[in-house]
Amino acid sequence: MEYRFARRMKHAPKSFLEELFRVSRDPEIISFAGGLPASDLIDVKGISRAAGDVLEEGGREALQYSTTDGYLPLREYIASRYRKRYNIPADASEIQIVNGSQQCLDLAAKIFLDPGDGIGIERPGYLGAAEAFSLYEPEFYPVSLGGDGPDIEEFSAMIRDFSPKFFYGIPNSQNPSGVSYSSDTRKAVAECLDDSDTVFYEDDAFGELFFDGKPRSPVKKHLFRQTIMSGSFSKIISPGLRIGWLFAPAGILKEFNVAKQAADLHSNFLSQKILSRYLERTDIDSNLRAICRRYGDNCRLMCDLLDDLFPSPMSHTHPQGGMFMMATLPPKMSSMKVFSEGIKEKVAVLPGIPFYVNGGGEDTIRLNFSSAGQDQIREGLERLSTVIRRLV
Amino acid sequence: MEYRFARRMKHAPKSFLEELFRVSRDPEIISFAGGLPASDLIDVKGISRAAGDVLEEGGREALQYSTTDGYLPLREYIASRYRKRYNIPADASEIQIVNGSQQCLDLAAKIFLDPGDGIGIERPGYLGAAEAFSLYEPEFYPVSLGGDGPDIEEFSAMIRDFSPKFFYGIPNSQNPSGVSYSSDTRKAVAECLDDSDTVFYEDDAFGELFFDGKPRSPVKKHLFRQTIMSGSFSKIISPGLRIGWLFAPAGILKEFNVAKQAADLHSNFLSQKILSRYLERTDIDSNLRAICRRYGDNCRLMCDLLDDLFPSPMSHTHPQGGMFMMATLPPKMSSMKVFSEGIKEKVAVLPGIPFYVNGGGEDTIRLNFSSAGQDQIREGLERLSTVIRRLV
Repeated sequence: MEYRFARRMKHAPKSFLEELFRVSRDPEIISFAGGLPASDLIDVKGISRAAGDVLEEGGREALQYSTTDGYLPLREYIASRYRKRYNIPADASEIQIVNGSQQCLDLAAKIFLDPGDGIGIERPGYLGAAEAFSLYEPEFYPVSLGGDGPDIEEFSAMIRDFSPKFFYGIPNSQNPSGVSYSSDTRKAVAECLDDSDTVFYEDDAFGELFFDGKPRSPVKKHLFRQTIMSGSFSKIISPGLRIGWLFAPAGILKEFNVAKQAADLHSNFLSQKILSRYLERTDIDSNLRAICRRYGDNCRLMCDLLDDLFPSPMSHTHPQGGMFMMATLPPKMSSMKVFSEGIKEKVAVLPGIPFYVNGGGEDTIRLNFSSAGQDQIREGLERLSTVIRRLV
Repeated sequence: MEYRFARRMKHAPKSFLEELFRVSRDPEIISFAGGLPASDLIDVKGISRAAGDVLEEGGREALQYSTTDGYLPLREYIASRYRKRYNIPADASEIQIVNGSQQCLDLAAKIFLDPGDGIGIERPGYLGAAEAFSLYEPEFYPVSLGGDGPDIEEFSAMIRDFSPKFFYGIPNSQNPSGVSYSSDTRKAVAECLDDSDTVFYEDDAFGELFFDGKPRSPVKKHLFRQTIMSGSFSKIISPGLRIGWLFAPAGILKEFNVAKQAADLHSNFLSQKILSRYLERTDIDSNLRAICRRYGDNCRLMCDLLDDLFPSPMSHTHPQGGMFMMATLPPKMSSMKVFSEGIKEKVAVLPGIPFYVNGGGEDTIRLNFSSAGQDQIREGLERLSTVIRRLV
């Protein structure tokens, strides 16, 4: 027999992620290619205690089926944190729990996109988003990302000319570039969209990870009824619990909930209860300060080493937060070559190519600074500079 | 602004499930409408112990990101159980972990269906499947389900005439009817499909729940390279852990894995490790015997009460396993009326209508016999018979 797959499967870009997870497991390789938060900053003890209590006090309920929207006390916590941190109105009824914010990408695409519909996206833009969206056969309209966010002229023309269903952006410490939108860019983006029918999809996976600990105002604040905002506990508490959420206007959340129910009924209920219990009695801001300090130190060290060790035409971004930065290789150097030569020298970087949905980015690499320790960063960038100097 | 949703959202049937979960929470209502496994038979202690050990011994790993395919020891357990129980070849490389078998429905539809593609389905057929599939805008080709499985003439003609991408069936104790395919029907279904390009989608959520404890040979045994088989720990260990799987030929599993990664990267890793640890040292067959005994006793009681208390033109199925049976109301009685009048009398049943994808089933109701105790079953069916006698 012949397997007859849907047309969309031909649109799936060959994924780098799975290979990366594999590469990053070779213990001899120093990997800047993955996207793991620092393992030693996961509060295993606190989470274990919460798990023990949940199972002891209400295990029978936590192990049963639950409702699609998610555990109410957890949604209330998320809403209250938005109110406190960003001073925006937010209610538990506007929050849908999902399996990490990756699921928001899939379900948002599902409720909005017919084949051929437009999506705006940053250039470079997040690979995981491009993968999820691609399966809905959209047209991508990439907008150049500068040091302050998307180029506003390009952005505005693109919205006007193509009226995409949504624009997907990461205003806080973007993956892969580490760029954050300036305050002016946030306002300008909101203004451009205000009289359009294009939704702003604000992926806020890294909003809690600014090195200075200060929140930045979300675009949603300026464009409340037209913005869907996704968040995740993966980067701030634990990825293995697979809990993220969508914060969206009721009219959108209703459709999103239908799609969520069809996709998997509801997210892991035990995890939701563990997280909720954990958040009830933990000062997560204290652990977040430790995470931000670590990532900030690592990022500064990486910037210094890139400046000191590498050939001078090489440049890099200067993140204010998050887990990633991007470097541009010396002219005409191939990032795929750097990747394969790097593996031989036991250092892994991620070629920028898959972050450019319509091609380009051959001379860029993404570097992760959250998972390696400082000694590894020094050693790994030494190895990388050897590779690059050899290729110049 | 105007929200512009995808065309597929218009295809989403209005869901009954969420309302049911809500109804079944009113403590005064005796509900036969839901689909919860018996809460008191969930081994909370054993799962707690496994959770404690996983978090203590390897919590840092369990709380990190993992690979899309799923935790290898868990996949090995699943494969070995197939080999042992059904005597079919099965390898961990053919198993993909998902968030309950509901996610298989979504992802299978995603990899196979373009809008307008055909799907074969039993009539009545599983509501959750119809909901998941509908979002991919297929044509449904329902085949009448008799006491021994699908009508083979109808089945064969449908496959020949419409060549659907797949036929979705539940050969073991189907939801909603409780019907199991006879051994001959299994072979006949496989023979009909053998020279077609139609995949058999064998949903085996209830294969471990035969009251006599004996396994029935899956259709996959007769049609190995052409069958995808989904399974779930929800009905045999715990729904709240949200862990199910797909068992499929490599050529299909590869595409399925791409879709899974785009959908949510991977399933809850903590749950996977807890389950794996639990299965390592628990004789689940002993607990399964208790579950089968309970459900069998409940089912027999329900059948007896239906025969004794209800007006004579009312008939019902005679399940050999699973959690559901179906009853046909006296001529011209509306199941929606029985539902709404039932709620007033504090008894909930599920109208059969949503299980008939192309209409029909107005005079049928689905009854769950896994979650209520025997006293509740007696009291609930008394109430229901009052409602039905009043409506005759």
